[in-house]
Amino acid sequence: MKPTGPIPEGFTARDHELVVGDEKVGALAARAGRTPVFLYSSARIEAQIAALRSAMPERLSIHYAVKANPFAPLLQFMAGRVDGFDVASAWELEAALAAGKPAQQISFAGPGKRDEELRLSVQHGATLNCESEGEAERTLAIAEELGCTPRMAIRVNPAFELRGSGMKMGGGPKPFGIDEDRVPALARHLIAAGADWQGLHIFTGSQALDADALIESQANVLALADRLAQDIGAPLPALNMGGGFGIPYFPGDTPLDIQAIGDALRARFAALPDSLANTRFAIELGRYLVGEAGVYLTRIIDRKESHGQIYLITDGGLHHQLAASGNFGAVVRRNYPSAIATHFGAEPAEEVNIVGCLCTPLDRLADQIAAPRADRGDLVAIFCAGAYGASASPAAFLGQGPAEEMLV
Amino acid sequence: MKPTGPIPEGFTARDHELVVGDEKVGALAARAGRTPVFLYSSARIEAQIAALRSAMPERLSIHYAVKANPFAPLLQFMAGRVDGFDVASAWELEAALAAGKPAQQISFAGPGKRDEELRLSVQHGATLNCESEGEAERTLAIAEELGCTPRMAIRVNPAFELRGSGMKMGGGPKPFGIDEDRVPALARHLIAAGADWQGLHIFTGSQALDADALIESQANVLALADRLAQDIGAPLPALNMGGGFGIPYFPGDTPLDIQAIGDALRARFAALPDSLANTRFAIELGRYLVGEAGVYLTRIIDRKESHGQIYLITDGGLHHQLAASGNFGAVVRRNYPSAIATHFGAEPAEEVNIVGCLCTPLDRLADQIAAPRADRGDLVAIFCAGAYGASASPAAFLGQGPAEEMLV
Repeated sequence: MKPTGPIPEGFTARDHELVVGDEKVGALAARAGRTPVFLYSSARIEAQIAALRSAMPERLSIHYAVKANPFAPLLQFMAGRVDGFDVASAWELEAALAAGKPAQQISFAGPGKRDEELRLSVQHGATLNCESEGEAERTLAIAEELGCTPRMAIRVNPAFELRGSGMKMGGGPKPFGIDEDRVPALARHLIAAGADWQGLHIFTGSQALDADALIESQANVLALADRLAQDIGAPLPALNMGGGFGIPYFPGDTPLDIQAIGDALRARFAALPDSLANTRFAIELGRYLVGEAGVYLTRIIDRKESHGQIYLITDGGLHHQLAASGNFGAVVRRNYPSAIATHFGAEPAEEVNIVGCLCTPLDRLADQIAAPRADRGDLVAIFCAGAYGASASPAAFLGQGPAEEMLV
Repeated sequence: MKPTGPIPEGFTARDHELVVGDEKVGALAARAGRTPVFLYSSARIEAQIAALRSAMPERLSIHYAVKANPFAPLLQFMAGRVDGFDVASAWELEAALAAGKPAQQISFAGPGKRDEELRLSVQHGATLNCESEGEAERTLAIAEELGCTPRMAIRVNPAFELRGSGMKMGGGPKPFGIDEDRVPALARHLIAAGADWQGLHIFTGSQALDADALIESQANVLALADRLAQDIGAPLPALNMGGGFGIPYFPGDTPLDIQAIGDALRARFAALPDSLANTRFAIELGRYLVGEAGVYLTRIIDRKESHGQIYLITDGGLHHQLAASGNFGAVVRRNYPSAIATHFGAEPAEEVNIVGCLCTPLDRLADQIAAPRADRGDLVAIFCAGAYGASASPAAFLGQGPAEEMLV
């Protein structure tokens, strides 16, 4: 028997059936027209944002990292609820604009921006987070050609990292941003060239669950921003402090203590150095805002036994939920939170393996978990599916095609 | 400095530029209209099939596993060159039919077949490889409803595995096929129910480079097929012996000795037991036929330094070549064969990291490799990209969209 990760708070049952957004999953699947379907609970997202705003200093803007989940209705929902969108491609920029977010509230980061992407960003007036001196020159040239003033910030590759983060975005050589020591010269050059100087973007890592590590990292980010602003010789208009707030996926993971982070940040904001006195501060979160609000719902199409093990074979799989299968950045596969959605909360009766429909041994959704008896037609829920699910999986693999998605 | 895997034979340079299908990659990229682009060399595939046919006994049919690469022009090319197609979904079945392969030369395996998929397969008359007793019953019911005779085989979950294979499809509990001991009863039931009995499908593993392991596995498959045919009490019309033939991807990998496998199989075929005397034999290969024929071509859009390391940032990445990034079934990331395609064969001048354009540290294409000087505009080739590339990668991630594909 292997454990599963913790099911996020707020998911309840009605008549032993999982409820998402006040509707039973069976009815939601019927409304979707087919399974698998990703269900995103708008109430859960709203509650997450509210809790975050209440914990964080009022001065801190909250940005949404579109890459976590770019589903159009979800972007529209987020647009009015967060202060900015961060995008990582021209497609995401256009999706953010289409969702109603004004370009002035959009910033664009990414190590490999094509000229067309820079052009689109300059034309619309989004903030470009420059990732190299070469990119800065290309942007200035494009802006001159267009006769526009480009809004530009610099993404810094910090010399420190976010301890305990799932993915490190700083500390040592990296493809992201510009090494600390070269930032001031480039910033002065951009200001001198007439760019609309927007300050710095310092992203140190992602998916951290240790508040102390995030508090330390944010302190380091503020200290670095002060040092760089002094070297640049101009106050910093804005500072994107990155993200890094993780969610519990696996057995033993505990929720991040955002109150502790907010309190520490409030104390720092009360004693800012002159260079940061009038700076606009933002954090950039994707997974933290939407990850736990998502449920991947897939239907059992066969139940079989092999050498004493029970297999529940679903119509979903890694082509929609690559991360849950353990094939996206994981070294050791562990079980995501999961449950038989049509017997939600029922006592376990047996040990089962839940797999996808793909003809590959990689397609595992839950290994050797305790579950109530489930049969063909029952629905399986894989939780924590709101971020890096639908858009981060190989939807075309074996010709299966994408899943449905619904904001409920 | 880290090594890269071996570049497949047959790729040459003209004016220091990589040539695929007798055309320079720069011209091919121009023809494609944009980068990244997957280039599949039809000559390379043709040569691979010819070498295989010459090594294998004439009696052995060669099937193509469509899941490896379902690009429509490639399927059309393969249709006339292999004896059968193996599909894993309704979409693949329709793609195989559209490529001109008659249904009688198509078989359908996969642990999670929906009723609509069974219906489509029965209607067209493709061979269904049954993966469970439940699926067999559903198929018989659908066939009765349609008034058709279903062509049916049984996929066996063998008690042995393919030693040294990258992915094991047998040995112990598995979601694939039916445990050996339950196969005879089901086969007799299918025959009694009037199904068009097609025999067995025994798939033991994939991506093996050790000829001895494959020879042993094929001997085990033949022995098991004989045992099962005797238990069934009817000669076996056909036996799909599975695949498992690997290609070299990584440093130290050596090509599979297909002559040794063919010689061993020829000797076995010369001394078949009565139960297999009139059996049609097939192997099912995907990666082996098309993997080495593919080149993923991506353009450098930035060159930057960070803490003394050089990064070449391309317009491609893991959204097209997930496996090359080390995020698809790999425990330890190793470098695929790769090269600067616009300075192909030139002496290495520096150590570089080749990364994709995605804003994630997972997006690595080649770590710390020796390469000639390359700049913005140069093209990078990642080899062994003909199988499990374009269709097995998260093309929508970060809004990048799919790569172009060309059969050349």
